Amino acid sequence: MSISEQAKKMKLAAPTLAASTNDMRNKALSVIEEALKDNKEAIFEANHKDLAAAKENNIAEAIVKRLKFDEGKMQACIDGLKQLRDLPDPLGKVSLMREMDSDMVLRRVSVPIGVIGVIFEARPDALVQISSLCIKSGNCAILKGGKETAETNRVLFNVIRDAVIKAGLPGECMMQCELHSEIDELLKCEKEVDLLIPRGSNKFLQYIMNNTKIPVMGHADGICHIYVDEEYDEKIAIPVIIDAKTQYTAACNAVETVLVNEKIAEKFLPALRKACEEAGVIVNENLSGEEFRHEYLAKEMSVKVVKDVKEAVEHINYYGSHHTDSIITENDENAAYFEQMVDSAGVYRNISTRFADGFRYGFGAEVGISTSKLHARGPVGLEGLVTYKYIIEGHGNIVGDYAEGKRSFKFKDLL
Amino acid sequence: MSISEQAKKMKLAAPTLAASTNDMRNKALSVIEEALKDNKEAIFEANHKDLAAAKENNIAEAIVKRLKFDEGKMQACIDGLKQLRDLPDPLGKVSLMREMDSDMVLRRVSVPIGVIGVIFEARPDALVQISSLCIKSGNCAILKGGKETAETNRVLFNVIRDAVIKAGLPGECMMQCELHSEIDELLKCEKEVDLLIPRGSNKFLQYIMNNTKIPVMGHADGICHIYVDEEYDEKIAIPVIIDAKTQYTAACNAVETVLVNEKIAEKFLPALRKACEEAGVIVNENLSGEEFRHEYLAKEMSVKVVKDVKEAVEHINYYGSHHTDSIITENDENAAYFEQMVDSAGVYRNISTRFADGFRYGFGAEVGISTSKLHARGPVGLEGLVTYKYIIEGHGNIVGDYAEGKRSFKFKDLL
Repeated sequence: MSISEQAKKMKLAAPTLAASTNDMRNKALSVIEEALKDNKEAIFEANHKDLAAAKENNIAEAIVKRLKFDEGKMQACIDGLKQLRDLPDPLGKVSLMREMDSDMVLRRVSVPIGVIGVIFEARPDALVQISSLCIKSGNCAILKGGKETAETNRVLFNVIRDAVIKAGLPGECMMQCELHSEIDELLKCEKEVDLLIPRGSNKFLQYIMNNTKIPVMGHADGICHIYVDEEYDEKIAIPVIIDAKTQYTAACNAVETVLVNEKIAEKFLPALRKACEEAGVIVNENLSGEEFRHEYLAKEMSVKVVKDVKEAVEHINYYGSHHTDSIITENDENAAYFEQMVDSAGVYRNISTRFADGFRYGFGAEVGISTSKLHARGPVGLEGLVTYKYIIEGHGNIVGDYAEGKRSFKFKDLL
Repeated sequence: MSISEQAKKMKLAAPTLAASTNDMRNKALSVIEEALKDNKEAIFEANHKDLAAAKENNIAEAIVKRLKFDEGKMQACIDGLKQLRDLPDPLGKVSLMREMDSDMVLRRVSVPIGVIGVIFEARPDALVQISSLCIKSGNCAILKGGKETAETNRVLFNVIRDAVIKAGLPGECMMQCELHSEIDELLKCEKEVDLLIPRGSNKFLQYIMNNTKIPVMGHADGICHIYVDEEYDEKIAIPVIIDAKTQYTAACNAVETVLVNEKIAEKFLPALRKACEEAGVIVNENLSGEEFRHEYLAKEMSVKVVKDVKEAVEHINYYGSHHTDSIITENDENAAYFEQMVDSAGVYRNISTRFADGFRYGFGAEVGISTSKLHARGPVGLEGLVTYKYIIEGHGNIVGDYAEGKRSFKFKDLL
């Protein structure tokens, strides 16, 4: 069956999945948990094949680390499934209930988005995390993982789909693409697919956005800033910067540019340079203009001296990517100004930018981080995977009566 | 100044508008109200010019009715401004407050989307409604109205922008495009414009979506259904269908297809045919396949006999446009099935589809109706014009400590 034919079947099954109870969806998560344990050996064996192939292809050590699916990652997946099961049902939440008239009530109720396509990097644990988020939120999922973990993905996907069927949910609600060419086929399914979530490089995201009519959620860049204000705490500034730069350099929430208030530059910069040297971080201090749009994703960063918090905010809003930015200050007024004026998904005070993450926000897991302002912004967990519908129950009400003044709306909120 | 240069200035002014208080934004609405009254004669005079030009160009009577800005429409605008002023501030709402750890608190706070471009039909009252919704929600607005009301729009826009400045808000936050060629310029401003809301024909919307990288909110089609179930109330079915078809045929929420349960067809169809004849509505009963995707926008409709509520839902989800659909039934089980399974922005029971409207939902006004599932679905009022940011305040917290197990998250909801 072609991707488009499978997607059509999925679209038809979507309302049935949407109508499933939280108990059924939680049961599916429990069955997945058991199935992962039961099929541990088969999963590890498949992963060994992927690792052997990676070795043969001389894939970099940092990437191989991500491909690996071992006891530790298995446990993390199982913990994630448990956490997700404990979260409240994201569906059927009534966010508005209003009497429009004495015999007509409006409700706004949360429902799944429908069919979601996720294209993700070669990380088997991502497959488990994304599938389980989609199941919990009642969404059909089309999964396309990185080719470097094809063997592991195939086993994991089959384990998960079997578990979904065993839990009584429609088997059509899960589908896997294995070929890179299938991505282009998927991009054409705008009638069947409600949302695409591509994870990976900026270039890849741009390719997706330029080649589909399906709405896309993702982040283009992660150019995050830390601004060290005049009244900074010495015990906070350096450790936060070093954590934000070095704790995981390849992450989108790693800091790329440090802005320093000119009044403290003379004292602070030597300390920063020293700390960076010790941490193996290269500091670029003589940049200008567009050079500040650079995302290093490595132990290297830009440093710029600014006049005040106002100039810092202007720099961040102009050169940043609206992802996550932090101010280091003991001054409440400057903190409030920064928090109000920085136009980013995450605006922090006195902490590392690396906290921008679904797990760390307590969302159980995340399907990605969005720098778009529409629908979901920042780490996207269950709430980002639902939409709503308006349900009105009446008794023969017609608009003509209200337009002609025979009846009038009462608008009484019942929530 | 080119559109792109103006948009750049607007983008810089956006955080200042976002930081304005509800009092300032409400004051702007009050000043607009007064200014509309004070400039009534100038507005009417400009409108007379537009009407004279329309007459010269032999524009259809139905459209001329929309162009007209008279005492009645002025009063409706003033009522709308008052209603909007009475609505609570959509900004600064905290929808999540969570202690991540004893010294670190996460808040999710509503903020404006930023810069919104609205391209709308030739209706001067739409200009007032859209501007005031953008002002109340703290969004910068780029307005492009239909060319047939160019004179009226110019006067109205100047009145409104002067009022905004008088209220202490940045003048850069309102901008008007007058030339059709400026639309293409606007479509290229993806760095400055956060959202486009095109109103008008399906063809126009498709053009916009195919020619911009800016996120677009709008509705492609309005193929709405009414399904008359086996256990229908005779006093409800016919009046609701006639209202939904004839109360305003050019509206996107007018019914296009009536589905009739086969068990009642023999009795119901003659009554429907008779009522339609009396109302001047043409009934098409022998259609098939893709013909059911037709949006008449006229006193004409499709009728199809279906086996049961299940077949009705399948027809609606397949041939409909996910806008608004209604079931006429006294059977609670079938109503629940319909409400759950129909994948539309509005799902109604025993009322006309014409209720799909921001005013009728009690939103004060609407900037449009969305058939997209992302961000806003259905009538889009103030809530659809805001997004949120995550603010975290901490005390030197670094991710390393949590990753290495030195500290652990507490996750305690404070709301």
